[in-house]
Amino acid sequence: MANKIIPVIMSGGSGTRLWPLSIPTAPKQFHALATPNTMIQETALRLVGNDYLAPVAICGTGHCNLVNEQLAAINKTPRLVILEPFGRNTAAVAAMAALSGREIDPEALVLLVPADHVITKPDAFHAAVVTASETARTRIVTFGIKAAHPETGFGYIERGEPLSDGIFAIKKFWEKPNLETAQRYVQGGQHDWNAGIFLFSPQVMLEELSLYAPEVLAACKDAYDKAGRDGAIIHLDEEAFGQVPSISIDYAVMENTSRSAVVPCDIGWADVGGFAELWRLGEKDAHANHVTGEAILIDAENCLVHNSGPVVSIIGLSDIMVISTPSGILVAPIARAQDVKLAAEAAKQRKGR
Amino acid sequence: MANKIIPVIMSGGSGTRLWPLSIPTAPKQFHALATPNTMIQETALRLVGNDYLAPVAICGTGHCNLVNEQLAAINKTPRLVILEPFGRNTAAVAAMAALSGREIDPEALVLLVPADHVITKPDAFHAAVVTASETARTRIVTFGIKAAHPETGFGYIERGEPLSDGIFAIKKFWEKPNLETAQRYVQGGQHDWNAGIFLFSPQVMLEELSLYAPEVLAACKDAYDKAGRDGAIIHLDEEAFGQVPSISIDYAVMENTSRSAVVPCDIGWADVGGFAELWRLGEKDAHANHVTGEAILIDAENCLVHNSGPVVSIIGLSDIMVISTPSGILVAPIARAQDVKLAAEAAKQRKGR
Repeated sequence: MANKIIPVIMSGGSGTRLWPLSIPTAPKQFHALATPNTMIQETALRLVGNDYLAPVAICGTGHCNLVNEQLAAINKTPRLVILEPFGRNTAAVAAMAALSGREIDPEALVLLVPADHVITKPDAFHAAVVTASETARTRIVTFGIKAAHPETGFGYIERGEPLSDGIFAIKKFWEKPNLETAQRYVQGGQHDWNAGIFLFSPQVMLEELSLYAPEVLAACKDAYDKAGRDGAIIHLDEEAFGQVPSISIDYAVMENTSRSAVVPCDIGWADVGGFAELWRLGEKDAHANHVTGEAILIDAENCLVHNSGPVVSIIGLSDIMVISTPSGILVAPIARAQDVKLAAEAAKQRKGR
Repeated sequence: MANKIIPVIMSGGSGTRLWPLSIPTAPKQFHALATPNTMIQETALRLVGNDYLAPVAICGTGHCNLVNEQLAAINKTPRLVILEPFGRNTAAVAAMAALSGREIDPEALVLLVPADHVITKPDAFHAAVVTASETARTRIVTFGIKAAHPETGFGYIERGEPLSDGIFAIKKFWEKPNLETAQRYVQGGQHDWNAGIFLFSPQVMLEELSLYAPEVLAACKDAYDKAGRDGAIIHLDEEAFGQVPSISIDYAVMENTSRSAVVPCDIGWADVGGFAELWRLGEKDAHANHVTGEAILIDAENCLVHNSGPVVSIIGLSDIMVISTPSGILVAPIARAQDVKLAAEAAKQRKGR
């Protein structure tokens, strides 16, 4: 492809649904989940080829060292690391991606990708980026994941008119549906999962932000211009960044602009939102157990073990997960994965005592 | 009472039924199980009063430091520590108890007690010792625990003729019975659990050993006489000790001698043979969970947590145990407690790889 691409890796979030693996000081993107490298490393490693420039990372101040260390360890030292003093949602992230992209190379495209997604078919992903790249000179292109099942935990993108081969205008963004609606989406074949991945020209994103989210853009520009610089590290100005409205890029721009497009694709995408997904995605042994780390399993079936501590032994239990890290040990049915946040909150309060 | 008593604490055994709490380098007697102190400390601490001299400990060579440290920590520094280079069953232990007792004070009585038993009514135990002490000048006295239920895991002692108030000759020792027989024992009221606790004069024990187990006594004397001495520490001679037949004191002497007696007593005795007993004995919260160490329990009932590591969280599970130590993490239904040895063996093999 003729376009240079700057990968901008969004490494925000510090979810509680993967406690005690994901903890505020080291959320899930910094862990190896069912892969040899950590999620942020996998994210950087799948963007290979002459088209891709060195990545930009956007993360919380407290994760600066982790980002630098983990990316340097795989020879993907970031061109810039933009430190948010606190989270301000994805419109601010998209603005920072556009501002830093313009600084690095205003002619390049920005590929904005979350650090904590799984993509098992990187070649298909790369092909989708190629498909999107010409359109991305004039539109903000999203990637629509072929809905494998009627998932109610994701937003959906409804395709509009075809723009060119494999790329469509967007008819509408849909919020997380109920099951009945999700089933209709899957049957209809016009709705794809919204993966939150974007390809755009910095100039187009800045124009659309100025039209639909001018307060976000103004405050982000201010925080970026006043930022402290330390080599590749950009410390966004805290006071200015505090003025940024907290709003998602979907809600602020994508649902309003007509300069959008979607590339439907099948890239083996997954959002490891909880341990149920981790078990579902992971390789299994003959008894459908997915094990990372040292484990002794006796009469155990359909279990998930993620262990970075002393050997874990499960005897005579099915459908449970045992997560052992230096931060804690979680034991629960996989079916209760959505309640892990309760334990995470209790652990946080306990620590604060 | 008029008799001086030398407590001799048997600290052998390295059971696998409490893995990963009990491990070969630190078996259960060196852990605090449902008590503030370790089991060997509790054992020493319950023998208080002017009648009791400083204890003797008999243990494996590898446990010498643990024994010394744990007893010194509670101001019960042992008078002697007899180190067995390997286990040779309880007849050898009784012989060593008699030999060391004779060395310390031939007029004193020896109270031979396992280091890993629970006795929740120490006053009742002390009263039973007082009851036994005069008879113990001429007979080997055992303590018969009132059978609280038809336990099939213990041996039983059948009472014979009364010798004096609260003390009986022994009609017969019975091996571990089947359930039907155990039920008959409990109903009959003449059979008590054999707790493996003995009070005797060194001279009487040596005489009975010479009559019924002369090979044991001869080899033990040889190993004791040739032992290396280092202050209070007695390193039994390995070659001589290797000649000791491995036989229990019950089988070698008690089932044969007529110079025996039993004091039936109700002393809150328990042998923490596995995690099921630990859960049964432990204090429970409102949901019948017994917890040692840091834990977050959400929708958890009838669970056992023994945790010396990072906080353990259980969500939505009942009747399970989670044991977390630096040696391993065990997760299993309490009802599978008897299978813990399988995990212990697997862990041992894994370590040996």
